Amino acid sequence: MNRQFVAWARNTPRAMHQQLTAYLTAHFPFSAAELQTVLPCFALRRTKRNESLLTKGEVCRHVYFVNQGCLRAFYLQPDGHEATRYVAFENQFGTALKSFITRQSALEFLQTVEASELLAIAHADFYRLLATVPAWAGVYAAQLEGAYLVNTWRLESFITLDARQRYEDLLQTNPHIVRRLSNRLVASYLGITPESLSRLKAR
Amino acid sequence: MNRQFVAWARNTPRAMHQQLTAYLTAHFPFSAAELQTVLPCFALRRTKRNESLLTKGEVCRHVYFVNQGCLRAFYLQPDGHEATRYVAFENQFGTALKSFITRQSALEFLQTVEASELLAIAHADFYRLLATVPAWAGVYAAQLEGAYLVNTWRLESFITLDARQRYEDLLQTNPHIVRRLSNRLVASYLGITPESLSRLKAR
Repeated sequence: MNRQFVAWARNTPRAMHQQLTAYLTAHFPFSAAELQTVLPCFALRRTKRNESLLTKGEVCRHVYFVNQGCLRAFYLQPDGHEATRYVAFENQFGTALKSFITRQSALEFLQTVEASELLAIAHADFYRLLATVPAWAGVYAAQLEGAYLVNTWRLESFITLDARQRYEDLLQTNPHIVRRLSNRLVASYLGITPESLSRLKAR
Repeated sequence: MNRQFVAWARNTPRAMHQQLTAYLTAHFPFSAAELQTVLPCFALRRTKRNESLLTKGEVCRHVYFVNQGCLRAFYLQPDGHEATRYVAFENQFGTALKSFITRQSALEFLQTVEASELLAIAHADFYRLLATVPAWAGVYAAQLEGAYLVNTWRLESFITLDARQRYEDLLQTNPHIVRRLSNRLVASYLGITPESLSRLKAR
């Protein structure tokens, strides 16, 4: 963090933006002026657990940064079972990105898993920043690359691994999911039944 | 296309770059100078049909632009069946993008489907252009967004649609795949057997 920014940050009353500020300045070359443009676009939203942020059929109009808690994106399968696609924990972004980009109805739901403190940025602000703040374009490129890698690995793991291998991979690559989510949600992430998950855990 | 560029393009002997030039200038704000930096990074490669461009376990070091023909990325499943992830036709880019980004071994294979004329750009050139040519960063952002949307829809369609619905969606969104690829490859894209595909086509 450069000195100009540190001086500015000390003067800001926005404690709610501290984590986002730390995240952005640690990974991207934000000037103090750019930060002052970006941060006010993020509004605080406190939620209960299992609170809906987006329902299938709606257009996703926000990206969320997780200050505290976690949220997940999931599909409802034809047989009524849920399939969890993605989980965002503290200091990560989460949204129904395909709907956010295309402005078409989402096929998935977005919901908090725990009581959460989120920062929400609206679609218009997000794209205004993309056009005017070079460092923000860098944030988006990195998020998009990360989202591509996560989703592609999700697709690959369903094609190339069996349930036991997917569980062991999850333990290695994203242990938070196994530790913080209920068995029902972990199973829905792995594409197996809670009973099969219990058997895998028992080994 | 601006006049300066047209004048330059008329003087260039590189007919092999015509399609790429048309594609880049139609969608992105390339200056003539930027194009003169980008085009020489793309080398011509002529292939037979079913020619291997990348084998599982190798690190993917090239992105291909298809002048003529088509290529596909596919996984070999534990049971020996192929699962086709992506197909690139004329004027599209194709690569094993996850391996190209992460520089880790690919889980997938890359192969031409038809005899093809490709333009290949190497990893080092690709990232040098990203750092030095703003319009190229725009090309990458657009490719990444497109790749994210395609792969996410692939994941969603396997979760939310049955085989008949996936076939009908493919006919609507990417009929080239059904028209130009063999039944075996179309079936491997849909995740069904060639026999099931024949039944779907017969309806």
